[in-house]
Amino acid sequence: MKKKLIISLLTLAFAAPLLAQTWIWYPGDYELWLGNKMNNRRTERGTFFPPFWKMASHYVLVEFSKQIDLLQPEEIEIAVEGKYNVKLDGKLQFGAPKKLLLSAGKHSLNIKVHNQATPPAIFVKGKSVNTDASWKVTFEDKEWIDESGKASDTSATVYMAAGCWNFNTPQELPSQFRLAVEKQSAVSKKELASGELIDFGKETFGYIIIKGLTGDGIVNIYYGESPEEAQDTEHCETLDKLQIKGTSVINLATGVSTPLLNGEYTLDNNKAFRYVYVTTEKGVQFSDVSMLYEYMPEEYRGSFRCNDEEINKIWDVGAYTMHLTTREFFIDGIKRDRWVWSGDALQSYLMNYYLFFDSESVKRTIWLLRGKDPVTSHTNTIMDYSFYWFLSVYDYYMYTGDKAFVSQLYPRMQTMMEYVLGRTNKNGMVEGLTGDWIFIDWADGYLEKKGELSFEQVLFCKSLETMALCAKLVDDKEGQTKYNGLASALRAKLEPTFWNESKKAMVHGCMNGKQSEAVTRYSNMFSVFFNYLKDDQKQEIKHSVLLNDSIMKITTPYMRFYELEALCALGEQNAVMKEMKAYWGGMLREGATSFWEKYNPEDKGTQHLAMYGRPYGKSLCHAWGASPIYLLGKYYLGVTPVKEGYKEFAIKPVLGGLKWMEGDVPTPKGKIHIFMNKRFIKVVAGEGSGYLYFTTTRKPKVSVGKIEEVTKNSYRLWIDTKEEVIVKY
Amino acid sequence: MKKKLIISLLTLAFAAPLLAQTWIWYPGDYELWLGNKMNNRRTERGTFFPPFWKMASHYVLVEFSKQIDLLQPEEIEIAVEGKYNVKLDGKLQFGAPKKLLLSAGKHSLNIKVHNQATPPAIFVKGKSVNTDASWKVTFEDKEWIDESGKASDTSATVYMAAGCWNFNTPQELPSQFRLAVEKQSAVSKKELASGELIDFGKETFGYIIIKGLTGDGIVNIYYGESPEEAQDTEHCETLDKLQIKGTSVINLATGVSTPLLNGEYTLDNNKAFRYVYVTTEKGVQFSDVSMLYEYMPEEYRGSFRCNDEEINKIWDVGAYTMHLTTREFFIDGIKRDRWVWSGDALQSYLMNYYLFFDSESVKRTIWLLRGKDPVTSHTNTIMDYSFYWFLSVYDYYMYTGDKAFVSQLYPRMQTMMEYVLGRTNKNGMVEGLTGDWIFIDWADGYLEKKGELSFEQVLFCKSLETMALCAKLVDDKEGQTKYNGLASALRAKLEPTFWNESKKAMVHGCMNGKQSEAVTRYSNMFSVFFNYLKDDQKQEIKHSVLLNDSIMKITTPYMRFYELEALCALGEQNAVMKEMKAYWGGMLREGATSFWEKYNPEDKGTQHLAMYGRPYGKSLCHAWGASPIYLLGKYYLGVTPVKEGYKEFAIKPVLGGLKWMEGDVPTPKGKIHIFMNKRFIKVVAGEGSGYLYFTTTRKPKVSVGKIEEVTKNSYRLWIDTKEEVIVKY
Repeated sequence: MKKKLIISLLTLAFAAPLLAQTWIWYPGDYELWLGNKMNNRRTERGTFFPPFWKMASHYVLVEFSKQIDLLQPEEIEIAVEGKYNVKLDGKLQFGAPKKLLLSAGKHSLNIKVHNQATPPAIFVKGKSVNTDASWKVTFEDKEWIDESGKASDTSATVYMAAGCWNFNTPQELPSQFRLAVEKQSAVSKKELASGELIDFGKETFGYIIIKGLTGDGIVNIYYGESPEEAQDTEHCETLDKLQIKGTSVINLATGVSTPLLNGEYTLDNNKAFRYVYVTTEKGVQFSDVSMLYEYMPEEYRGSFRCNDEEINKIWDVGAYTMHLTTREFFIDGIKRDRWVWSGDALQSYLMNYYLFFDSESVKRTIWLLRGKDPVTSHTNTIMDYSFYWFLSVYDYYMYTGDKAFVSQLYPRMQTMMEYVLGRTNKNGMVEGLTGDWIFIDWADGYLEKKGELSFEQVLFCKSLETMALCAKLVDDKEGQTKYNGLASALRAKLEPTFWNESKKAMVHGCMNGKQSEAVTRYSNMFSVFFNYLKDDQKQEIKHSVLLNDSIMKITTPYMRFYELEALCALGEQNAVMKEMKAYWGGMLREGATSFWEKYNPEDKGTQHLAMYGRPYGKSLCHAWGASPIYLLGKYYLGVTPVKEGYKEFAIKPVLGGLKWMEGDVPTPKGKIHIFMNKRFIKVVAGEGSGYLYFTTTRKPKVSVGKIEEVTKNSYRLWIDTKEEVIVKY
Repeated sequence: MKKKLIISLLTLAFAAPLLAQTWIWYPGDYELWLGNKMNNRRTERGTFFPPFWKMASHYVLVEFSKQIDLLQPEEIEIAVEGKYNVKLDGKLQFGAPKKLLLSAGKHSLNIKVHNQATPPAIFVKGKSVNTDASWKVTFEDKEWIDESGKASDTSATVYMAAGCWNFNTPQELPSQFRLAVEKQSAVSKKELASGELIDFGKETFGYIIIKGLTGDGIVNIYYGESPEEAQDTEHCETLDKLQIKGTSVINLATGVSTPLLNGEYTLDNNKAFRYVYVTTEKGVQFSDVSMLYEYMPEEYRGSFRCNDEEINKIWDVGAYTMHLTTREFFIDGIKRDRWVWSGDALQSYLMNYYLFFDSESVKRTIWLLRGKDPVTSHTNTIMDYSFYWFLSVYDYYMYTGDKAFVSQLYPRMQTMMEYVLGRTNKNGMVEGLTGDWIFIDWADGYLEKKGELSFEQVLFCKSLETMALCAKLVDDKEGQTKYNGLASALRAKLEPTFWNESKKAMVHGCMNGKQSEAVTRYSNMFSVFFNYLKDDQKQEIKHSVLLNDSIMKITTPYMRFYELEALCALGEQNAVMKEMKAYWGGMLREGATSFWEKYNPEDKGTQHLAMYGRPYGKSLCHAWGASPIYLLGKYYLGVTPVKEGYKEFAIKPVLGGLKWMEGDVPTPKGKIHIFMNKRFIKVVAGEGSGYLYFTTTRKPKVSVGKIEEVTKNSYRLWIDTKEEVIVKY
C-alpha cells in the first residue's frame, strides 16, 4: 500500500498543468528588469543603497512572431504590456486590436511592442494559437522596403526563442509580479524605557504593520536580527522613520506617503528582522505591531531526516535560510545587501537542486548576473564571480537537462569569455587588473590578491572547460575546439606552476615566475573536487591542507561549503558530519534561527554580530550559510545526475556516522527517495535510471535487479524501475 | 547709426544668460530616451509603426559627483528624477534629502540615482554649488569595501562629463519636456457629400481640435498633405477614428480615452497635414475644426534676400520645411516616418548651420543615431548612413568649435568604426553583407547594390579621415596613426579601382576585380567636393557626369543637395541658380508650401503624391528638400568656417547671376552679415576673423584693411573687425 501511494504521488508530480498560453518576452529581459528592482531595494539606515556595478536594461522595442497553420478559423485574444501593433500576413491591423479573427490556413502573425518602463510582453490566447516559448522574438527586425514598396530580404534578423515564466492569464501582468504575503504576529513584546521591543520569534522578512496609530508626530522603527541590533538606535543596519500627520503616514526614509486607515499602517518597504524596536515621539501612540510576511512560494521537494536531531535541526534551519533568501532571485542575505551575487548564487543553485528544484529561479538569476553586452567588468565586478557564473550554466544543464536555456544564453557566454580572455597575461593566466575585485573569501588573515593566483586559475580553467561543453551542446564546433584548446593549455600549466612538492600542496599564487610561500585552502579544495590532481596528490592535500590546522582556517560558511565538499569527495563523510555538528551546530547553540554570513567559533557574544567594521554589519541570514542542504543531499543521500536532467543518476549513500537517514532528492519531474540504515538501503527512483553504489563486507541481497561487485566489497546495482528497491547489505 | 545698432545687437547675442544650474544626466542618455519617444510616434493609417532597428536605452543607475571647495557654508537644494541617495564626504545622508547644508571647506558630493522609466537626472542649486557639465557621472562606480569596512581603490571607475540641455529650474523636469504649442485656425472649409474638408492653408503639424461635439458615435479624421490624400479615405497615410461616448472621447487608433470638456476635444496624438477631411456617423455632430500647432522654438539666425523673388520664396519655404522637421530631433519628414535617419540628419545639420545654428539639436540627433554598444548593425541599418554619422561629428566641430562633445562621443565613434572595420573585405573595402542596407538614393533607374561600390568607398574613406581628425582632437595618438593609415591605404585605391579614363568618370562599382559598365553621379559628386581627384579630373567629371543628361538623373532633393554642391564647388553657381529655380521653383509651381521627399519634374498631377507603391506615400515636407538654405549660405553668401567654431572664417560671395543679395550666416555666438551687388560687397563679421575673397577686373577699394591680389583678378582681404567693411570692386 505504501509503495503504491508513493508512486501515485510521483505521478501527480509529473503531471504539471499543461497551460499552453503564457506571457512571453525577450529572453532575459524580464529577468533583468525584475532584477534591477530587486537590486535597488537595499537601504542602509533609511537611505537607498544601490549596487556599484552596471545595470542592464530590457530592449524597449521588440517584435514577436509565429508561423501558424490552422485547420479551422479561430479568434485570438491579445494582451500586451506596451504600445503595440499587430501584423497578420504582413498587413498591419488597425489600432491596437485586442481580438483578431484568423481564417483557416497558413498565417504569419507579428506583434511589435514598445515599452520603456517595463519589458515589452505579450499574451495571446486562442484555441490553438497561444503564446509560449515556441514564439520567436527579435529586437532588430531589419525589415526594409524599397521605393516601390517591395519588402527587402529580412534574413539578417536574428531571432531568439521567447522567454516566459508562469504568468498564464491575461490578468497576470508580468510587470505587476509580487511575492506572496501572509499576515503574521509577534511572539512577544517588551516595554522598555523609551520604546517597545517586539520579537517575531525567528528571523523573518516582510512589511511591519502598526495598528492603533493616533496623534501627530514621529514613529521610529529600528530593525534587528538580534535584540542588541534593534535596540542600538545609533548603529542598527536598517530603520524607518514615520511621520504621522492626521490621516496620512509619510515614511521619511522613502518619502512615500500612505493614507492611514482605521489607525493601521503597513510599511511601504520590506525588511529583514527578528526584532523591531519601536519608539515614538510624544504625541503619537500605537497599540500593536505585527507583520506581513513576504515569501516566494516554494515546494520543499527535497527532504532529510536522520537519527541525529541536531543534524535534522541543521537541515531545517538550512532550508528556512534558503527559503528566506530565495526571493525574486537567489540573493545573498535578506538584511543588508539583498543583492544577487554570483558566488553566493552558485551555492544557492546547488542547494536548490536538493531542496526546491526551482529551475525558474536559477534561470532568472543566471540571466540577471550576466546582464548585457558590452561586458565592461567582471560579474558583480569580481573575477571569481565571473567564473562561478560560467560554472553555474553547465551545472544547471546537468541537473535539469534544459538545453534550450543553454542555447539562449550561449551568445552571452561567448562575449563574457571574450572579456575574460581579453584580460589574460602572457602566460594565458588571469591576474587582477584595474577594476577587478579579487574576492576569494572574507578571511581573518592576510590574503594576497596580486599576481597569478592558483585559485583564480583553477576557476578559469573550469570555466574554459564549461565553455567547451556548452559549445558542444549548441553545436558550435569552432568554439568547442577553441575552448578545449585553451582549457587544455591552462590545465597543463596548473601543476607545474602551483604544485609544491615539499609542501604537498598548491601554493596560493605565483608572481614573476616565483611561487609564493603561502598555502591557502582555496585552490587545493577546488582541485580536489574538480579532479585536477592525481589521486595521491589529493590524498596528500587532505592531510597537508584540509585537515591541517596550521593552514589559515575558513570562517565563512561560503568557503566551508567547498572545503567540506572536498572532504566528502575524498570519502571523509564521518569527519564532515562532525564538522557540520560543530560549525552549524555551533551557530544553533548561539541561538541562530537562520544561518550566518560568517561564523568564527572563537568569537564571543556580540562579536558574532559585527562585520565590515560595523557592530551589526554581519548578515544573520545568508544563503551561503545553508550548505548542509547540499552536502546532505549530494554526499550522504548521495544522489547526483550522471546524464543531463537525471536521465541517468548515481546514488552513493553514505551514513557518515549516522545510524539511519531518509530523504528525497528532487529531479526535474519527480524525486528519488532514499532510506538507509546499517542493514539495508531502500530506494524509490521516481525518474531516470542509474546505479546505486554501496560497500559491505557482508553478502548483499536485493529485492529487484542484479547486484554487481565492482571491486572487493564494492557493489553496484542498476535501478531501472519506479518501484521500491530494497538492498540488504 | 545703423552700424552701431548692428553691433549692439550682436553684443546682446553674445550675452547668453548665465544660468549655472541645470538638470544633468549621463551624456547621451536623455537624448536616447527622448529619441525613443520620438521614433515611436509614427503611425500608419491609425496603427503604431515603430522603427526596425535596435533602440538603445539610458543607464538606469547612475552616480553624479562633484568636488567642492567652499569659502563659506551654503545650503543646496536637490531635485532628482528617480530614487536616490546623497553622500557627503563618503557619508550617506538619511533618506532622500531635498536640502543639504554644506560647511566651508573641501567636500565631495555624490548623488546616486536609479530610474528605469526615465533617465536618472539631478538638479542642484546653491550659491556656488550648481549642477552643470563640470559634474562627473558614471554608470559603474566600482566602489568596494572589504570585510573591515575599508573602501577599495575606485580608480577603475570611468567618469564622463555630465550631459545637459536647457532645463534650468527644478520644476522643468527633463522627462516632462514637450515642444511648444499654439492654437491656430483653418483658412477654409468645404462641405462635401459625406464630410467636411478643412484647409489650414499650408503644410503644418500638430493636434486637431474639434469643437461643438455632440451625440454618440464615430468621427473619422483623414489627414492629407494634399486635398486628394485627405479625401481618399481608403488610402490616406494617416487617420484617426474617434468614438464619442457621452462625456468622453476614445481615440480608437491609440486606445486613449479623454474627457470631453464643453464639447471640445484635442487629439491625443499629433500629425502632419495641410488638409483634414472629417466624416461622422449619424448621431454625432461638430461645429468647428482647428488645431494646436506644435513646434520647436527656433530663432532664425540665418537669412537670405535677393532681387529674385522666386529665390526668396524658395529660401522661405526651405526655412519653413526645416522648421517643421526640426522637432525634438532633426527628423526626415513630418507625415510618415517622423524618424531620425542619419543621411537625412546630416543635411539638416548643414542647413541648420546656415539657419538656426541650433547646436543642441545637432548633438541630440548625433547621440540618438549612435545608440549604444554593442553595435549590431549600421546606423538605421544603412551602410551609407553609418558613414554620414562619422562625417557629421567633425562637421559639427568645425562649425561650433565644441571639442567637449567630440570627447564625450569619441569612444562610441571608435566602437562604431570597429564594427565597420570588422566587415571589410580582403581589399579593405566595404561591401553589402547580410543585414546591410545599401541605400545610396531613391532612384528611378536600376542601382546595383552588390560588390565594391565606389560611392560607399568614398564615404568610408572620408569616415576614416574623420576618425583620424577626431583622434587627434582628443589626443588619441594610437588611433590617429591607425585611422590615418587606413584612410591613406583606402584613398590610394580609389582612383586605380574606380576611375575609368575612357569614361572620364568614377564607375559605379567593381565586382571580382572588374569595373562595372555603369557610371552614376554619386561617387563622382562626392569625389569632387571631398577633393579626392585631380583638378582636371574634376573638370572632366563636370562634363562627363554632372552636366551629362545621359547619366541617370537624380530625382530626390536629397542627392540634388550633393550634386549642386559639387557644381558649386566647381564654380558653377550660375548653373546651380538656374537649377534651383527650375527644381525647387518647380515644386512651388506645383503648389508646394514645404519641400518634398522626391520631385520628378516629368511627373504629372497626382503622380507627384505617390511613392513606395502607395498613392500618397510621398512626404511633402521632407528636411532634405530644403537644401537651398545650405547652398545659398555656403556657396552664394559664401561663408564657411576655416578654423573650428568660426575662429577663422572664409567669405567667398558669388552672385551666381543675381543682381544683389543680402543675408546673415550665424556663427556660435554671433553672425556674419553680407551684402553684395555687382559694384560692392559689405561685410559685418560679428565673430572671428578671416579672409573675404572676390574677383574683379576693376581695381577694388576697401573702407578698412588692405586688399591683396592672390592671382590675376583674384583678391583677398583679411577682416579682423566687427565694424562694417565695404569693398568696391
